[in-house]
Amino acid sequence: MDLPDGADTRHYLGVRDSIAAHIENGDLGHNACLPSERQLQSGTGAARGTVRAALFQLEAEGLIYRKERSGWYVSPAPIVYDPTRWEGFMSYVKAQGRDPKTELLGTCEVQATAALADIFGVDAGATLYELRRRRYVDDRAVLVETIYVDPRLAPGLLDHDLDGSLTQVLKREYVVDVARNRIDMQPCALTQAEAAALRVKSGLPGLLVTRISYDAQGRVVEYDQEYWRHDALKVSVDIRVG
Amino acid sequence: MDLPDGADTRHYLGVRDSIAAHIENGDLGHNACLPSERQLQSGTGAARGTVRAALFQLEAEGLIYRKERSGWYVSPAPIVYDPTRWEGFMSYVKAQGRDPKTELLGTCEVQATAALADIFGVDAGATLYELRRRRYVDDRAVLVETIYVDPRLAPGLLDHDLDGSLTQVLKREYVVDVARNRIDMQPCALTQAEAAALRVKSGLPGLLVTRISYDAQGRVVEYDQEYWRHDALKVSVDIRVG
Repeated sequence: MDLPDGADTRHYLGVRDSIAAHIENGDLGHNACLPSERQLQSGTGAARGTVRAALFQLEAEGLIYRKERSGWYVSPAPIVYDPTRWEGFMSYVKAQGRDPKTELLGTCEVQATAALADIFGVDAGATLYELRRRRYVDDRAVLVETIYVDPRLAPGLLDHDLDGSLTQVLKREYVVDVARNRIDMQPCALTQAEAAALRVKSGLPGLLVTRISYDAQGRVVEYDQEYWRHDALKVSVDIRVG
Repeated sequence: MDLPDGADTRHYLGVRDSIAAHIENGDLGHNACLPSERQLQSGTGAARGTVRAALFQLEAEGLIYRKERSGWYVSPAPIVYDPTRWEGFMSYVKAQGRDPKTELLGTCEVQATAALADIFGVDAGATLYELRRRRYVDDRAVLVETIYVDPRLAPGLLDHDLDGSLTQVLKREYVVDVARNRIDMQPCALTQAEAAALRVKSGLPGLLVTRISYDAQGRVVEYDQEYWRHDALKVSVDIRVG
């Protein structure tokens, strides 16, 4: 994402600011299609390379996104996620007036790698359930996730309906209750598999959120790896001095 | 960061796994230089494009990083940041046995934009102090930040030594105490200015951390925008039910 030839820093920031102003004042609403690059060129008097540099900058900031073969669009408002609150995806998305959806992509039984064995406290090679899901906000794919569950805690889990809250299924069907979550978040670049599942270009930034859930006895209930598209999420924490 | 011609998904993941294994088992320690791309080619029998795809994948995951004109290196362990704990950079980096450093890049007085005026509750155009700093862990630049402070709370602030904890200066010199922090985190792509300050390629993923600090009376003490390189930070939160 280096600057195309002929783009000048001062100019592209000017074009960036002018497009951003149209987004901020509401001329261009969420999911609105931006004028074509050609129209932006004639509208701003800037060179093609300058316009593209401004668009890449806005994409990097998460203000706009690309759809293949159909141009640039204004990003919807990000979902606000407070990791200190005890709430799942289906619930915090709904609470923000948005429409959450979970799609089960596939399930299988896998042999625990050394890393997974370590997390679950089982022998390497022990069987674990693996679920792959994609989650949507207002019909836009925002994350793909891989979840591991120990079959000893939830035998037959894969036969249940897994298109919603897994935590609810574990509670209802297996009386397994989550008492503690350890959540790690690390920015990443979305590589081939995740990018394809989210229908974005590989190499775009994302956020990897991993969660280990424990029950009251300290047993690992689930281990979840979520890859979020970078413009879909804002992590927000409000703390007061102890 | 699409795959170079001739790279095959199965092959590049194999090369990725083999390099990752050398990092994980300690053959290649933190900051160790990787073998050259040519050596990796002959060592793995893979095509040049396949080796490069594997390296890009490892970079995306934060396991390795590039230095201009000198090759690929193993990333140091990321700093763990828990936003629920009441601790500043200088303190939590030290607590992890690492060496923090703050470099003041420049200070000036600016006119508040509409967005800044809104945050500080001042009129647009009002004067604010602006500080630009770069922060290091073990002599590696990990973040650049822009901080705004209202001069009414801390007149003459820019005359003090600002190469350390700003919170400490505000407390010691102005009896201004932070009582609440609102922290937002959003993955982003590092654009020209930040990437140059961190000496990375623009377009690489980063994490934008913004913090609004309030005193006990609810006045905004500082507004801080930090751009982190993506492999330098892991955000970690541990929570228990209710």
